[in-house]
Amino acid sequence: MSGKDRFINVTTRGNYALVSIRREPVNSMNLEMWEQLLETLTSLENDKKVRGVVFHSGLSRPVFTAGNDLQELYAPATSRERYEKFWKVSNTFLARLSNSPLVTVAAIKGACPAGGTCMSIACDYRVITTDGTMGLNEVALGISVPPKWIKLMASVIGQGKTDKLTQFAKMVKAKEALAIGLVDEVVQDEKELLERAETVMQGLLMLPDPGRQLTKNSLRGALAKEWADERWLNSEAETAWKMLSLPSTIKALEGVFARLSKAKM
Amino acid sequence: MSGKDRFINVTTRGNYALVSIRREPVNSMNLEMWEQLLETLTSLENDKKVRGVVFHSGLSRPVFTAGNDLQELYAPATSRERYEKFWKVSNTFLARLSNSPLVTVAAIKGACPAGGTCMSIACDYRVITTDGTMGLNEVALGISVPPKWIKLMASVIGQGKTDKLTQFAKMVKAKEALAIGLVDEVVQDEKELLERAETVMQGLLMLPDPGRQLTKNSLRGALAKEWADERWLNSEAETAWKMLSLPSTIKALEGVFARLSKAKM
Amino acid sequence: MSGKDRFINVTTRGNYALVSIRREPVNSMNLEMWEQLLETLTSLENDKKVRGVVFHSGLSRPVFTAGNDLQELYAPATSRERYEKFWKVSNTFLARLSNSPLVTVAAIKGACPAGGTCMSIACDYRVITTDGTMGLNEVALGISVPPKWIKLMASVIGQGKTDKLTQFAKMVKAKEALAIGLVDEVVQDEKELLERAETVMQGLLMLPDPGRQLTKNSLRGALAKEWADERWLNSEAETAWKMLSLPSTIKALEGVFARLSKAKM
Repeated sequence: MSGKDRFINVTTRGNYALVSIRREPVNSMNLEMWEQLLETLTSLENDKKVRGVVFHSGLSRPVFTAGNDLQELYAPATSRERYEKFWKVSNTFLARLSNSPLVTVAAIKGACPAGGTCMSIACDYRVITTDGTMGLNEVALGISVPPKWIKLMASVIGQGKTDKLTQFAKMVKAKEALAIGLVDEVVQDEKELLERAETVMQGLLMLPDPGRQLTKNSLRGALAKEWADERWLNSEAETAWKMLSLPSTIKALEGVFARLSKAKM
Repeated sequence: MSGKDRFINVTTRGNYALVSIRREPVNSMNLEMWEQLLETLTSLENDKKVRGVVFHSGLSRPVFTAGNDLQELYAPATSRERYEKFWKVSNTFLARLSNSPLVTVAAIKGACPAGGTCMSIACDYRVITTDGTMGLNEVALGISVPPKWIKLMASVIGQGKTDKLTQFAKMVKAKEALAIGLVDEVVQDEKELLERAETVMQGLLMLPDPGRQLTKNSLRGALAKEWADERWLNSEAETAWKMLSLPSTIKALEGVFARLSKAKM
Repeated sequence: MSGKDRFINVTTRGNYALVSIRREPVNSMNLEMWEQLLETLTSLENDKKVRGVVFHSGLSRPVFTAGNDLQELYAPATSRERYEKFWKVSNTFLARLSNSPLVTVAAIKGACPAGGTCMSIACDYRVITTDGTMGLNEVALGISVPPKWIKLMASVIGQGKTDKLTQFAKMVKAKEALAIGLVDEVVQDEKELLERAETVMQGLLMLPDPGRQLTKNSLRGALAKEWADERWLNSEAETAWKMLSLPSTIKALEGVFARLSKAKM
């Protein structure tokens, strides 16, 4: 996979942008995708004409994203250096997104586990299709949920529900996601999905920016700041790499690869 | 408006007090009202016979309070000095109320936006009439929600719901306020309102004070302390004044004045 | 009561343990019981074969535990020295339990007030019988709820509901406990109780330990650490002893003794 592949496509619609994510077959998030997401966010935040952004999947399959590319987490397939970069870029993007001055909406088509869920809950508003699923299910793969992803989820649905979903690696369907506050709206299909996401965006853009941005910063600034902190990023990258280098973790991921490869046959 | 106007009227009922708030036409909260609320709270807390307080509106209109008097927030109508005093007195009162050793009940008649909501959720218990509405809707006026008001709301209904209500300037009706935990009880009308508030008060006063007060302090002491902190009050007053002095904020408030004046015609 | 009485009985079931608690008549938790709970937890955590623990009541009565033995809180019946030890051992156990590397399940039969509730909500999962009740109702006895017990409850059901339950000394029945997230499951009777607790345990033990343990530590490590902090334990023991030594607290507890003794007749 060349670093020049483009996974992100931006369309502007007056005062907001549509960002489509497409990396076949299931939008698994590798280093290059996170880098492009970070560049895209930075460039939209610097564009005076843009006040909001809607993220959606450009795949034909019903998948928002399958979360982190497991090749980036499987120690034998990567290196400590690459993993550290991967960790920093992905968490820097997510921290920045969680407190972006832009209005942010996630239009979630279908499956949205792990990294897809974290990216969605970092947005201000979430619409999901009725066949969608969400959760931070890392524990089922034998790995841990990144600490700030847990804090972000707790800020959205509360610590008690986050404890159950993460410790027990539970995925929830669209209807339950709505009931527990993990999403804000459920729609029937993909067509309705973007329509609703854009209608919501247009409504939110009726509110003046300065008061809303200060308010958002009061709500989200503290977590975003500790999340993007350089020292924390370094120490957590080390903790995570140790866990990924455990023989038991490598074996657990190999079990996942075997199940995925069987499922394809 | 003279500083000698009395907006607060106190009646004692055995071991608790009824505090009625009346500043026609809609109890908008100016500096003098906040000063009188602070004096009233201090004097009730120092009165050995008083163990609880019920706040209610003395207006004939169905309004608890309309929140802060916009004249205090409209930079051309006030001064930096007056605004700083306004900020400090109002936030000191709210911080103190949120962890008062007294049992505190809000009897909410009708509309209760912004400052009215903050004052109500600083109390231990809230009863609202069925026509009532609540919310921290400052963003709709083009201004920000004060940071500790957000923290207080998050401590009552959770961070996730607070994010939606404040960022999107959403007001909720009595029934929804009950469903999300923003109030504890909904009653039909004003007559029932005070009856229920007093019945609840009498029930709570059956519990011995020392254990309840220590428990309340464990629940609310940390926020009350950082909220009333002198250095924080000063730095936040400065941030808020900058926002209020922005031409875009002044223009947004002028838009509000125009809408209000049209609505009266 | 001799220090050699055994209140705790451990049975191992493959990779997890059943811990039965029995101190007639109602499992009131005295110093010796907390000591034995702490020893038991330590020894299970050190046993490489054990990955989980189910706590349940060994009484014939429908009581998980009645909470702290009031003799340990009634100043005339104890001493400052004994109380300090009692405070430290009980809170050290609860803090350790709340972030144990083991999977922890509470099988709650019947009444489960105060200390019983705290111990249960320190576990990862709770099943309760339909006649069960829970709450941190200390305020009704004229004493305060320990600060970290409040924080723990807030981490499970949110700060808003915790405020109501603790300040107002409210006990909730099984069905309401389920609705507010204080328990995860309600069963008909004692037989079903252990069956379900063990089925849940077996399901949770399908997940690999390292990722789950790191995730649990992200969820619960910060509270467990401040809770077990030596300096905090000392200063809080002092605050609590002062409250227990107040004539009004002693009188309130004597009122409780009188009611309990009447209830037995």
